[in-house]
Amino acid sequence: MFFKVTPIEEVLKILDGFPLLGSETVPLKDAYGRVLAQDFFATKELPEFFRSTMDGFAVNSRDTFGATGSIPSILEIVGEVPMGSMPQFELKTGECARIWTGGMLPSGADSVVMIEHSSMIDEKTIEVYRSVVPLENVIKPGDDFKKGEKVLEAGTVLMPQDIGALAAFGIAGVNVFKNPKIAIISTGDEIVPITEVPPPGKIRDVNSYSLCSFARKYNAEPILLGICRDEESEFRDKLLEARELGDSIWISGGSSVGMRDITIKVLESFKDVEILIHGISISPGKPTIIARTSDGRGIFGLPGHITSAMVVAEILLSYFLLRITGQSPDYDGIHHRIQAEITRNVDSSGGRDDYIRVKIIKEGDRLFAEPIFGKSGLISTLVQGDGLVRIERNREGLYKGEKVNVILLRDIFHKKGV
Amino acid sequence: MFFKVTPIEEVLKILDGFPLLGSETVPLKDAYGRVLAQDFFATKELPEFFRSTMDGFAVNSRDTFGATGSIPSILEIVGEVPMGSMPQFELKTGECARIWTGGMLPSGADSVVMIEHSSMIDEKTIEVYRSVVPLENVIKPGDDFKKGEKVLEAGTVLMPQDIGALAAFGIAGVNVFKNPKIAIISTGDEIVPITEVPPPGKIRDVNSYSLCSFARKYNAEPILLGICRDEESEFRDKLLEARELGDSIWISGGSSVGMRDITIKVLESFKDVEILIHGISISPGKPTIIARTSDGRGIFGLPGHITSAMVVAEILLSYFLLRITGQSPDYDGIHHRIQAEITRNVDSSGGRDDYIRVKIIKEGDRLFAEPIFGKSGLISTLVQGDGLVRIERNREGLYKGEKVNVILLRDIFHKKGV
Repeated sequence: MFFKVTPIEEVLKILDGFPLLGSETVPLKDAYGRVLAQDFFATKELPEFFRSTMDGFAVNSRDTFGATGSIPSILEIVGEVPMGSMPQFELKTGECARIWTGGMLPSGADSVVMIEHSSMIDEKTIEVYRSVVPLENVIKPGDDFKKGEKVLEAGTVLMPQDIGALAAFGIAGVNVFKNPKIAIISTGDEIVPITEVPPPGKIRDVNSYSLCSFARKYNAEPILLGICRDEESEFRDKLLEARELGDSIWISGGSSVGMRDITIKVLESFKDVEILIHGISISPGKPTIIARTSDGRGIFGLPGHITSAMVVAEILLSYFLLRITGQSPDYDGIHHRIQAEITRNVDSSGGRDDYIRVKIIKEGDRLFAEPIFGKSGLISTLVQGDGLVRIERNREGLYKGEKVNVILLRDIFHKKGV
Repeated sequence: MFFKVTPIEEVLKILDGFPLLGSETVPLKDAYGRVLAQDFFATKELPEFFRSTMDGFAVNSRDTFGATGSIPSILEIVGEVPMGSMPQFELKTGECARIWTGGMLPSGADSVVMIEHSSMIDEKTIEVYRSVVPLENVIKPGDDFKKGEKVLEAGTVLMPQDIGALAAFGIAGVNVFKNPKIAIISTGDEIVPITEVPPPGKIRDVNSYSLCSFARKYNAEPILLGICRDEESEFRDKLLEARELGDSIWISGGSSVGMRDITIKVLESFKDVEILIHGISISPGKPTIIARTSDGRGIFGLPGHITSAMVVAEILLSYFLLRITGQSPDYDGIHHRIQAEITRNVDSSGGRDDYIRVKIIKEGDRLFAEPIFGKSGLISTLVQGDGLVRIERNREGLYKGEKVNVILLRDIFHKKGV
């Protein structure tokens, strides 16, 4: 019944001890949002040739020196660079060639005169009204990336621009951390599948779905193993199945003493499972269990109430998931946080970190965090809320008007203009 | 060659004119991150019965009035509520029943005494040391949601907590906006597939991959149609194919005059396509084309340079994608933005909104935005950058030390502790 609760800082250290997942190669077109598993270094210079950045005329810049509107340079057009081709001619003094944006400079040319700064005298001759300096309107080999330069660091979450850079180097498959597979079990004799109408005394299986969605939020792959009754051998069988399938196992329920006892008993019955945490000094979420298999899988026993399970998920599982996929998170940076003024006094019992649910209200330029009160286990406090505010365990509460950091649990930026 | 450029505010209004996509029903377990297509109202009270929120004893609160450590109330245990069952007995005065968290109160009980506030005298009798008030440690029907109450609003991006609420109501399939299908075409004779080694004068097809990833970033489904040469009939065929497959068509390239002319010519040749925009007063990204089919599909002609294409995508396509999926975005809220001090003077030519790439640097508590300069078309400016700063068209630049809003293009929070 009574257990030693662990403060969150210690829990994070324990989570740091879990091993990284392995890596896999995915097609570049599917690599968005994945985490790069190793540094990527430029395999060659980019661009590989002198490219024009404008539509105009490739010239030798010396031929334009001193050119003005009243004293233009006169140049002979000796060719055109077709897009995507290597020019088969060379510019001599006084010569130029038509070129388009992205085109390759012919040899003898070192710059490009914009079409706007020239005019045609006849089919073969242009006047240039402005001088260009060497490399003007041109990018040269290595301007983008030098061979051997570090382009992307391991641990980078690949954004469209990064995928673009990899495409430029011809990387058709990228080595990324595997997405964790999460085996999810709901426990409790009171739980029925969501497709059933719960008879009196029973409720639907909420946690399988909220945890499944939470896993997706952090790019993990949920595997729903359904509902397990408060029964030792059934739970043992489910756990064995879960260990086969999941890189991590999330068990919700067990907030009643009976189920918690069964969970602990079954976990202890596995010789290769070590129970690391049995109780965390946060509220809601105190009766959380963390265990580890000898091959490094994390087993999390989460409270049965959705609110408690979600708080533990957002506060701890987010960190765990980023950690094992090589993102070495800064804990306070996992969630977007915004500052707001709390709208009323909030008591806190002390000795544990309290996470209260708040709604963000914008009035003019000021942001307010309005606490949503409600008994433990009410889904509505989370659904109506925008985020969480942590009251640290050395505080006895918050004062109305105090500035607090709100951990956002939904994107309110484009809904509320915050 | 010359075209009238449209300011961004007008472009947004034009984007507002595109119709919403239709909706579809998806399994609840796959609904994370999807956009709810219609309001959801509670179909019943939640919870449906009086539930205990603690392990302890169900009691009639009157039997505990005045109970203290020195003068406890003595109650007889007449039964236990098995989890998930409707109690088959009724409490009379002086009686109590064991109950677990989540259990259904027997009739005659109105509250729960925590196990910590009681002790066993014998197998059948407890002492209660603290009085409880009616409904203490109990949630009653409707505490979470009242029947008919609005639970979730159309346009909500479904988060784990929302999915949990839907599960509680037994919603196994959710009506959400369809994810837009995006047909993506790269154009230009200089482009080769990324799996090929580009011969001199050619480059790899970067934009198919960066735009594909960009689509995924906003939950759209990319369809890569590959590379199209600067040739009218080939481009026409590709466009016809794209119209069959995509809710929207994104064409990159055409930054050279030749390809831009072909794009416009072919678009104009379709009787049911209207060209809405031909040039936007932003830099990079000016030569952007926006057209619309009579059945409401958006056709976007994007610049060929990855940097320009990405800026247009982040500044406009993001808005377009949120708009057609029912999210009616607040424009300034689409991206996370942070305030930082610009580290040097930046010139801007005026008359157009300039988007410069910046890197965020944290020094102590101060955030700095360091401009990354580089010629148009360099991928590296985006890869090394963390975001964009807009210099409005009525400004001639930024002064060193000025506070700017940085539109973040990657999550720097947990990498840089920002």
